[in-house]
Amino acid sequence: MTVAEVASIRGVVDLRSDTVTRPTAGMRAAMADAEVGDDVYAEDPSVNALEAEVAALFGHEAALFAPTGSMANQIALQLLVPPGEELLCDADAHVVTYEIGAAAAYGGISSRTWTSVGADIDPEVVAGMVRPDGYHAVPTRAIAVEQTHNRGGGGVIPLGTLRDLRRVADDAGLGLHCDGARIWHAHVADGVPLIEYGRLFDTLSVCLSKGLGAPVGSVIVGSAEKMTRARLLRKRMGGGMRQAGVLAAAGRYALAHHVERLAEDHARAARLAEAVAPFGVLAAPVRTNLVPLDLGKAALDAPALAAAARAEGVLVSVLGPRIARLVTHLDLDDAGVDRAADVLTRILRG
Amino acid sequence: MTVAEVASIRGVVDLRSDTVTRPTAGMRAAMADAEVGDDVYAEDPSVNALEAEVAALFGHEAALFAPTGSMANQIALQLLVPPGEELLCDADAHVVTYEIGAAAAYGGISSRTWTSVGADIDPEVVAGMVRPDGYHAVPTRAIAVEQTHNRGGGGVIPLGTLRDLRRVADDAGLGLHCDGARIWHAHVADGVPLIEYGRLFDTLSVCLSKGLGAPVGSVIVGSAEKMTRARLLRKRMGGGMRQAGVLAAAGRYALAHHVERLAEDHARAARLAEAVAPFGVLAAPVRTNLVPLDLGKAALDAPALAAAARAEGVLVSVLGPRIARLVTHLDLDDAGVDRAADVLTRILRG
Amino acid sequence: MTVAEVASIRGVVDLRSDTVTRPTAGMRAAMADAEVGDDVYAEDPSVNALEAEVAALFGHEAALFAPTGSMANQIALQLLVPPGEELLCDADAHVVTYEIGAAAAYGGISSRTWTSVGADIDPEVVAGMVRPDGYHAVPTRAIAVEQTHNRGGGGVIPLGTLRDLRRVADDAGLGLHCDGARIWHAHVADGVPLIEYGRLFDTLSVCLSKGLGAPVGSVIVGSAEKMTRARLLRKRMGGGMRQAGVLAAAGRYALAHHVERLAEDHARAARLAEAVAPFGVLAAPVRTNLVPLDLGKAALDAPALAAAARAEGVLVSVLGPRIARLVTHLDLDDAGVDRAADVLTRILRG
Amino acid sequence: MTVAEVASIRGVVDLRSDTVTRPTAGMRAAMADAEVGDDVYAEDPSVNALEAEVAALFGHEAALFAPTGSMANQIALQLLVPPGEELLCDADAHVVTYEIGAAAAYGGISSRTWTSVGADIDPEVVAGMVRPDGYHAVPTRAIAVEQTHNRGGGGVIPLGTLRDLRRVADDAGLGLHCDGARIWHAHVADGVPLIEYGRLFDTLSVCLSKGLGAPVGSVIVGSAEKMTRARLLRKRMGGGMRQAGVLAAAGRYALAHHVERLAEDHARAARLAEAVAPFGVLAAPVRTNLVPLDLGKAALDAPALAAAARAEGVLVSVLGPRIARLVTHLDLDDAGVDRAADVLTRILRG
Repeated sequence: MTVAEVASIRGVVDLRSDTVTRPTAGMRAAMADAEVGDDVYAEDPSVNALEAEVAALFGHEAALFAPTGSMANQIALQLLVPPGEELLCDADAHVVTYEIGAAAAYGGISSRTWTSVGADIDPEVVAGMVRPDGYHAVPTRAIAVEQTHNRGGGGVIPLGTLRDLRRVADDAGLGLHCDGARIWHAHVADGVPLIEYGRLFDTLSVCLSKGLGAPVGSVIVGSAEKMTRARLLRKRMGGGMRQAGVLAAAGRYALAHHVERLAEDHARAARLAEAVAPFGVLAAPVRTNLVPLDLGKAALDAPALAAAARAEGVLVSVLGPRIARLVTHLDLDDAGVDRAADVLTRILRG
Repeated sequence: MTVAEVASIRGVVDLRSDTVTRPTAGMRAAMADAEVGDDVYAEDPSVNALEAEVAALFGHEAALFAPTGSMANQIALQLLVPPGEELLCDADAHVVTYEIGAAAAYGGISSRTWTSVGADIDPEVVAGMVRPDGYHAVPTRAIAVEQTHNRGGGGVIPLGTLRDLRRVADDAGLGLHCDGARIWHAHVADGVPLIEYGRLFDTLSVCLSKGLGAPVGSVIVGSAEKMTRARLLRKRMGGGMRQAGVLAAAGRYALAHHVERLAEDHARAARLAEAVAPFGVLAAPVRTNLVPLDLGKAALDAPALAAAARAEGVLVSVLGPRIARLVTHLDLDDAGVDRAADVLTRILRG
Repeated sequence: MTVAEVASIRGVVDLRSDTVTRPTAGMRAAMADAEVGDDVYAEDPSVNALEAEVAALFGHEAALFAPTGSMANQIALQLLVPPGEELLCDADAHVVTYEIGAAAAYGGISSRTWTSVGADIDPEVVAGMVRPDGYHAVPTRAIAVEQTHNRGGGGVIPLGTLRDLRRVADDAGLGLHCDGARIWHAHVADGVPLIEYGRLFDTLSVCLSKGLGAPVGSVIVGSAEKMTRARLLRKRMGGGMRQAGVLAAAGRYALAHHVERLAEDHARAARLAEAVAPFGVLAAPVRTNLVPLDLGKAALDAPALAAAARAEGVLVSVLGPRIARLVTHLDLDDAGVDRAADVLTRILRG
Repeated sequence: MTVAEVASIRGVVDLRSDTVTRPTAGMRAAMADAEVGDDVYAEDPSVNALEAEVAALFGHEAALFAPTGSMANQIALQLLVPPGEELLCDADAHVVTYEIGAAAAYGGISSRTWTSVGADIDPEVVAGMVRPDGYHAVPTRAIAVEQTHNRGGGGVIPLGTLRDLRRVADDAGLGLHCDGARIWHAHVADGVPLIEYGRLFDTLSVCLSKGLGAPVGSVIVGSAEKMTRARLLRKRMGGGMRQAGVLAAAGRYALAHHVERLAEDHARAARLAEAVAPFGVLAAPVRTNLVPLDLGKAALDAPALAAAARAEGVLVSVLGPRIARLVTHLDLDDAGVDRAADVLTRILRG
C-alpha cells in the first residue's frame, strides 16, 4: 500500500508534518477572489499587502514573499554572509540540514556549528566560537537560530536567551537571523509578542505554509535596503513569480485566522505526549505542536513503529533509526488525535 | 503617475510582457477546485497530473513543476553541466541575461557565447566553438537554445536548424537544452508538433505563465533519472513547494484552453507590426507575439517612446537606449491593440 | 619597530610559527642542482620523484605536489565531497578556520562541526552527527581530522581513536581525510609508522614547509584515480606550476634530513612549557612542537605578552584575546630557546 | 617512446610552449642566494622587492606574487566581478579556455564572449554587449583582454584598440583586466612602454615563467586597495606560499636579463614562419614568439604532423584536429630552430 493509497483512506490521521495541510474553504475563497498583478514588477497588490502586513507584525521596514521557507532562509543568509565568510548555527539547524547544502553550494557560506539539545543554547558557547575579522581566519559574519526548533522537538528558545545572543552578535558586529518557520508557535506558547522577536533579529523568515495552513509561501523580513537586495537574490534563486497574489491571499487569510488557533495544535500535541510518555519514548518535553520520540528504550525502532501505525491509518515521520516525530496541525481534530493516541499506545504496549 | 496608478486606469493597454496576464474566471475556478497534497512528498495529485501531461506532450519520461522559468532553466543547466565545465549559448540568451548570473553563481557553469541575430543560428559556428574533454581546456558539456527567442524578437528557430544542432551535440557528446518559455508560440507559428521538438532535446523548460496565462509556474522535461536529480536540485534552489496543486491546476487549465489561441496573439502582434513598420522601427519580422522595435532611425529614443505611450495608457518595455518591445497576450483584445496601434503611430509620426 | 625590523635584529627568537624557517645551506644546494621540467606536462623529474616518495611513505598509489597546505587540503576535500554535500570536522580545524572559507566558497561544501578539546575526539559523537544519503537532508560524505592539531596545541590524536573514526567512516560509507600538515610530528612523538597513518585515510595532505623546513610546498596522497582528478582541480585552483622541481628538491632534502630531528623541536617545546607552566598559563600538555598558552589566569593578556616579548627580541603568536602560542622549529637552537624561556618567565612573573 | 624519453634525447627541439624553459645558471645562482622570509606574513624581502619592481614597471601602486598565471588572472577577475555578475572577453581567451572554468566555478562569474580573430577586437562590438546595472539583467562589470593573444597566434592588440576599449569601459563604469602573460612580447614587438599598457588597465597579470624563463610565478598589478584584497583571495585560492623568495629571485633575475632578448625569440619564430608559409599552413602573420598553424589545406592533420615531427626530435603542440602551434623561447638557439625548420619543411612537403 503506497503512501498515496493510505492517504486516500477515509479517516487517515497524518502526523508526519504540518506541511501536509490543505487550504480550507475560506482560504480557497480568498485565493479565488485575490486581486493579482505581476510581482516581478512589484505590481501584485495581494503580495504587496502581505509583505506590508508581515513587516509590520515584526516591526521591520520591509518584507519579501518567497515560494518556500528554504528560499527565504537562504536569501537571508546570503544577505548576511558574503561568500567565503562564516555562519554559526547549531548542528541540527534546518539551514544546514534540510536545505540541501544551499548555503555552501550557492552562497559559498562557510559554517561551523555548536551542539545544542533542542532549543537550549548557551550564548557563552556561541560567543566563544566567533572568529574576528582579519586576514588569517575566516571571519564570522552571522548567527542563525531556529524558533521553534524543528529537530529540537518544537522547543521554544527563551526570550532571555535570544536577548543574550543579540548581545553576542552586537559585541562582535554580527548579523542575527531567525529561521522562524514556526515562530507563530513560539509566540502562542510563550506569549511573546511577534514584535518583540522582530526587534532582536536583522532578518527573519516566517512560514505561511506549515502551522498556518497556506498552501505555499514564506516571507523574509528586514530593512528596506536588505529587501531590495533580497528581491535580486530571489530572482537569482528562481523565486521571482508572477501573479503570486493567489498565494499571498492564502497567506493573508492564514495570518488573520490561523495564528491564535495554534493553541489547539499545542493542546493536541500535549495529548499525544501524555499518551506515549508512560512508555519512556518522549525525547523532550512538548512545548508546541511537535512530539519528538526517542525509541531507544522501546522494543521496536522508528521504521517499525511507523509501519505498524501506517497499517492502522496513522502516519508518523521517521527522522533516524530510533527517532520519530508526531506533528499536530490544522487538518487534525480531536477525534483524529484520540485515534492516533490509541493506535500508538497499542503499538508501544507491544 | 506610478506604474501601479497607470495600471489602474480603466482601459490601459499593457504591452510590456505576456507575464502580466491575470488568471481568467475559468482558470480561477479550476484553482479553487484543485485537489492538492504535499508536493515535497510527491503527493500532490494536481502537480503529478500536470507533470505527466507535459512529459507526454514532449514525449519524455518525466517532468517536474517549478515556481519559475528561471528556476526550470537553471535546474536543467545544472543537470547537464558540472561546475567548472562549459555551456554554449547565444550572447542574448535568457539563461545568461535575465537569470541574474545563476548559472555561474550557483551552478559554477562557465559559458561562452556566440553572436546570433534573433533566431538565426549557424550550427557550424556552434560546432566550431566546442572544446573537447581533456586536461587542458574547459570541456564543453551542453548547448542551450531559446525557442522562441525573446531578445531575438520572438523569432522561431527552424526545425532544420535544431536538427543540425542536435547532430552537433551528438557528434561531440553534448547535452542540448531548450529554454522553451514560448515554445508554444513556435509550435503554433510553424506547426511543428511539440513532440517533434521534444525528441531533439535532453531537457526542456516550458512556461505556463507567459503566453499560456497561468499565474505561476514552469515545467522541466527530461528522462526519469534526470527528473529525480532535478527534484533534489529544486529543493536546493528553494523551489520545493507544498500544496502547489493550486498552481498546477491553473497550468493544466492553460494547457487545455490557451495553446491554440496563441494564433490570436500572433495576429495582433502582426497588426501592431504593420502599424509601426512604415516608420522604419521594426527590428525584425514578426513571427509570434513579440514586436521588437529598434528606434535607431526614429526621432525619439526608447525611454521617450515609452513615456509618451504611458501618458496615453499604453505600456511598452524598454530593453535598451533605442530598443523597445511590444508583446501581445491573453489579456489583450482587438480594441486594445487598435488603440495601442493608434497611440504608437501618433507618437512615431512626431 | 616593525616586525621586519625586529626580525633583522641579530639573535631574535621567532616562536610565532614553524612556517618561518629558511632553507639551510644543504637544502639550497639541492635546489640549485635540481633537475627540472614542465610539471603541467608531468615532466618535472624532481616533482615526479617527490610524489613517488611521499606516496610510498604512506602506502598510497599516488601523490601530487601543491604550492600550499591549504590548496592540498582543499583539493582533497573537493575530491571527497561534491558541492552541496557535507563534511564533518571539529570546530577548530584548520580547514574551516585558516583556509579563508575555500571549502564552501570554491567547493560548495557544507560543513557541520563538533566541539573538540585539542586532539581529543569522541568517535561516538562524530558517528551521531552523520546524516544518511537521501532526498531530505544534506548527506554527509566525509570526515576530516588534523594530525597534529594546530589549535589543539599540537596534540596527537591516538592511533586507536583514528581507527575508531575509520570504522565510523566505513559504516556510513564516508571518506576520511587527514590534514597532516604536522603528521611528521605525530609520527615522531607517538612512534606510529607513517604507513600506519596512511592506511587509515582516503586522502592525506602533508606539509614540507612547516616542521620540515622546505620553503614552499605540500603533497596530497591518495589513489591513482583520485590524483588524476586532483591534478585537474590543482589547475582550477591555480596551482599548476611549471619547473616546480626547484621546490620539490627542497622537499626531498627535507624528507631525507629533517623528519627524525623533530624530536629536538619537541624537546625544546617541552623546555619552554616547563618554564611557563609554574605561572598556570599552559593550556594543554605539550606533546610536539607547539606550546599553547591560555593567559586567562595571568595578569597580562595575549597582545600584551606578545608586545613585551617582542621588545626583548622574542616573537610569539596571538591567537585570541588571551590565547598565545609558542612554536619550536628548525631555525631555533637551545640558546634561543633558553633566552625565550628567560624572557617569558620574566614577563609572566610581572 | 614517451614524451619524457623524447625530451631526454640530446638535441630535442621543444617548440610546444615557452613554459618548458629551464632556469639558466645565472638564474639558479640568484635563487640559491635569495634572501627569504615568510611571505604569508609579508616578510619575504625578495618577494617584496619583486612586487615593488613590477608595480613600478606598470605604474601601479602595488603588486602581488602568485604561483601561476591562472591564479593571478582568477584573483584579478574576482577583484573586478562579484559572483553572479558579468565578465566580457573573447571566446578564445585564456581565462575562459585554459583555467578549468575557475571564473565560474570559484568566482561565480558569468561570462559572455565575443568572437575575435586573433588579436583583432572591435571595441564597438564589445560596447554593444555591455548590459547596464539594474534589477532585470546580469550587469556587466568587467572586460578582459589578452596581450599577446595565445590562441590568437601571438598577435598584438594595437595600443589604439586598447585605448578605445578603455573608453568603452569608462563609459560603462567597467573594470578592464589584461591577461598579460606575454605582455613582454607585445612591448618588444610594438615598442610600447610597459607603463603605457599599465595605465590602461585596472588590473594586469604578468608571467615570469613563460617568455621570461623563471621556473614558477606570475604577478598581479593594481591599486594598493585591490592588492590588499588580492592577498586574501590568494590565500583562499591556496596560493599563500611561505619562503617564496627563492622563486621571486628567479623572477627578478628574469626581469633584469630576459625581457629585451625576446626579440631573438620573435626573429626565430619569423624564421619558422618563413619555412612553413610556402605550404599554406600559416594561420596568421607571426608578430611575436608563436607560430600558429592551420593544417586545413595540408595533407596531414595536426596529430599526424606532431607525431612525424616528434619522431625526428621536434616537439610541437596540437590545439585542435587541424590546429598546431610552434613556440620559440629561451631554451632554443638558432641551430635548433634551423633543425626544426628543416624537419617541418620535409614533413609538410610530404
